[in-house]
Amino acid sequence: MCVIFLYSANSILQKRGFIVVLTLHFASNSRAGRILWLLEELGLEYTLNHMEFHPRALKSDEHRARHPLGRVPVLDDDDISLFESGAIVEYLVARHSDGVLRPAQNSPLFPEYLQWFHYVEGMIMPPINTIVVQTILLPEDRRDPEVLRQAQSLLKKAVAPVDAALEGREYMIGDFSAADIMMGHACFMSRRFGCVDPGLENLNAYIGRIESRPAFQLAIKT
Amino acid sequence: MCVIFLYSANSILQKRGFIVVLTLHFASNSRAGRILWLLEELGLEYTLNHMEFHPRALKSDEHRARHPLGRVPVLDDDDISLFESGAIVEYLVARHSDGVLRPAQNSPLFPEYLQWFHYVEGMIMPPINTIVVQTILLPEDRRDPEVLRQAQSLLKKAVAPVDAALEGREYMIGDFSAADIMMGHACFMSRRFGCVDPGLENLNAYIGRIESRPAFQLAIKT
Repeated sequence: MCVIFLYSANSILQKRGFIVVLTLHFASNSRAGRILWLLEELGLEYTLNHMEFHPRALKSDEHRARHPLGRVPVLDDDDISLFESGAIVEYLVARHSDGVLRPAQNSPLFPEYLQWFHYVEGMIMPPINTIVVQTILLPEDRRDPEVLRQAQSLLKKAVAPVDAALEGREYMIGDFSAADIMMGHACFMSRRFGCVDPGLENLNAYIGRIESRPAFQLAIKT
Repeated sequence: MCVIFLYSANSILQKRGFIVVLTLHFASNSRAGRILWLLEELGLEYTLNHMEFHPRALKSDEHRARHPLGRVPVLDDDDISLFESGAIVEYLVARHSDGVLRPAQNSPLFPEYLQWFHYVEGMIMPPINTIVVQTILLPEDRRDPEVLRQAQSLLKKAVAPVDAALEGREYMIGDFSAADIMMGHACFMSRRFGCVDPGLENLNAYIGRIESRPAFQLAIKT
């Protein structure tokens, strides 16, 4: 297990005298990048368990004790442990964000925040999963060009409403929020896979803004 | 547009003198069943727009104005409109549940609630989507038995941790919660597709409990 200690210069909770014991179980090029990004955006102190993206690490007994299927991310917070990136994002903004990065439940922005947060795993990630399987995970002789083509077509359709929603906005609900942690990461991946039409000006500008955020840059290069 | 008015006998908000103007845009055998189920569990008053599960209804200009890709569910709440079943569940329990069906943020059950809520779209629904495409939506000559086999295998693996989590529990976090709206519906579908091993006793008993709930029965037969 390779453990890297990263200390943020801007820990909100550290300033208040709390000791935060967060550990992120992480692998590069996975949804765990979302959580590393969010931890950095929130200025939280954490320990990073940087694992190899390989079955010998992810499917080890040690990691299967954290996630029965050997997936990342997993977050430990003292004696609490949870998986699923969407759950971890909700958890961190609820318990560790000091009220930032999400609208209050009575805010007019709350419905849209929820909608775009959930749109990511509901609509965008399923075709991305298929593209990853068909271009990276499967051996070449088991790949199916028709399945890949269907997934690419579906992904192009799925990101189009995001472009429309961004008209006149910098981020999904105006200001940067945790919905952008989910959506920004998914749209960045969609463009990497060649599924964001260059004519979608709002979406391309949005991905550019995401890429310019130092916390995102750190997460993506880790 | 076929509109059916359903009035619940047990509207919490009605008793308090509020007028609730909820409309659910619905099609049978879709994720919209989750929302119909939840509306019934909460005893809320609503209007049901029961659409045909067919492109002539879902891809109509009228419905595309609600959801750009013509999907269901969509929920209207007075002048608010939102899509994505996970978002709508979160919205309803936040704004219309009177504090029931979800643990408070400082509850010890809150992390698990989030984890299993998000596990549904993250892990269980992607292979279900593929199974639906490969057994129902695609014409027979374009189906791929290998893709179907992979999805069935993945789904069987994805539901196994749910069985383990249910050890000694009736529902995902003990008492029935909105996480069960997501999970119960997904596990019911998984069993329908033959991907819940009969040996998973906790999970089979859980699906039985879900099926015995009157609100679920109404949602599934609508």
